[in-house]
Amino acid sequence: MELTDFSEIHLPLVEEEMVSFITEYTSDERLKESMVYSIHAGGKRIRPLALLATVSSFGTKIDTSVYQVAAALEMIHTYSLIHDDLPAMDNDDLRRGKPTNHKVYGEALAILAGDGLLTGAFQLISMTHLANSPKLLLLQQLAVSAGTQGMVAGQAADIEGETKELTLEELALIHERKTGRLIRYALLAGGILAEQPEEVLLQLQKIAAHLGLAFQIRDDLLDVTSTTEALGKTAGKDERADKNTYPRLLGIEQTRAALQQEIHSANEIIAQLEQEVCSFDGDILRQLVKRFDEK
Amino acid sequence: MELTDFSEIHLPLVEEEMVSFITEYTSDERLKESMVYSIHAGGKRIRPLALLATVSSFGTKIDTSVYQVAAALEMIHTYSLIHDDLPAMDNDDLRRGKPTNHKVYGEALAILAGDGLLTGAFQLISMTHLANSPKLLLLQQLAVSAGTQGMVAGQAADIEGETKELTLEELALIHERKTGRLIRYALLAGGILAEQPEEVLLQLQKIAAHLGLAFQIRDDLLDVTSTTEALGKTAGKDERADKNTYPRLLGIEQTRAALQQEIHSANEIIAQLEQEVCSFDGDILRQLVKRFDEK
Repeated sequence: MELTDFSEIHLPLVEEEMVSFITEYTSDERLKESMVYSIHAGGKRIRPLALLATVSSFGTKIDTSVYQVAAALEMIHTYSLIHDDLPAMDNDDLRRGKPTNHKVYGEALAILAGDGLLTGAFQLISMTHLANSPKLLLLQQLAVSAGTQGMVAGQAADIEGETKELTLEELALIHERKTGRLIRYALLAGGILAEQPEEVLLQLQKIAAHLGLAFQIRDDLLDVTSTTEALGKTAGKDERADKNTYPRLLGIEQTRAALQQEIHSANEIIAQLEQEVCSFDGDILRQLVKRFDEK
Repeated sequence: MELTDFSEIHLPLVEEEMVSFITEYTSDERLKESMVYSIHAGGKRIRPLALLATVSSFGTKIDTSVYQVAAALEMIHTYSLIHDDLPAMDNDDLRRGKPTNHKVYGEALAILAGDGLLTGAFQLISMTHLANSPKLLLLQQLAVSAGTQGMVAGQAADIEGETKELTLEELALIHERKTGRLIRYALLAGGILAEQPEEVLLQLQKIAAHLGLAFQIRDDLLDVTSTTEALGKTAGKDERADKNTYPRLLGIEQTRAALQQEIHSANEIIAQLEQEVCSFDGDILRQLVKRFDEK
């Protein structure tokens, strides 16, 4: 199946899970509105897509619980964007071509909308009809990925790194935490939902590690080479903010080579899994990997 | 046992669990420091104390898992204070007599410290050695209590309520969500940890509902009748901010009577539990209830 068809079939159902959860389990109208606003702002939905593609590549049926875990993951991502855009953080007025949450609802409600989506992600997974053991593993790994060893630590280091020159290794570590961990969770959760053994979960996380780096390198590249209109957010912002980026540390050509290397490595592990796991078909994941390429 | 002795024995171990969890599971030094700062800022620890007192009143041994769940609960409370104190929210410079988190670490890190404590609470419970079934119930109920049907909804309604006149019912509902739900969680979690059946868990939550209201009424009263020094936070702030409070809606004398009524109701259910549950000794909970009285 083409990944675009796969997305068109499944992603609307992930969005539906997010919106129906928020609508049913939020007691304050304005808070609800502000959460739904950021959910509807859309985006590429790359994390839930990666989760669903992973589940599907093992021939496992995508049922309600899978959509709910994918929805929880995207809620975590959405909360992080809302908080990241705040004046005290990145101070962004525009996100995915629309005014950021605090621009529409004010800072106080934006902070609370983020807190609500974060808490809601755990509530939603806890309410799925999965067996206790995978459910607990999914909850625990989500906390580990999103928390102070993962995404939150990456964001803190990113803020601190703004005021100093970083090495390539330091930069990679920040990105691994800030964006890599949730992408890793996507593939890990997909593997857990497809009831895969530990060694396969490890392979999936290796693919995800390459994708995570590719994701950030691509993001840095596009900030330099694309326009505000095409990005749906302010282009050239990193350079003006004197941010540590791959193009700045490596130059554009070497950055492009680094991106190709990560994509190649991800595809190699997919090929390996096809050799080793008879139920596994790498086609949809290979198409996903292509999404991380520059164009 | 006297509640003061009980607190002195057990609360330091709750704090130890919080600090050791944060220290072990935070990858960024400055983030770690800012989280520990707010944990060490102390406070009355009324939520973990209520949880531990509940466990103990059923004769159940307080073990590491109990301390960890109590620690997770206090981490949620601490995160809510950090976010609540932000300039965009209550804009408080002082908390428990010390500069607020954002005053020391800046707004960006304060937001992330809050996000980290919130996420960490779920991580910590997921890592306890409890059986899967109570562990999942504790995780789910924590999300429900802290999230967009509970505390976060209460805070959103509180912000919106600042610009309008509220009825006593509306005010009570805001407080029930904003502070009541975590107090209810404390007693519910205590009951779950003491392996109590559904009907006892319901009684515990009724006690907690009265305590939650008592807590807020007392807080409003002290804002009028106490000093900044005694409170460790700015006194008279509610009145100056033209906030909806019990004394403002009921007058001081009727507010005092309402507080006594809640305390009386809580004690009545404790007495009932003593009649109905043979392992239950209400002594320590009755002492806890006294803490919610004005003086």
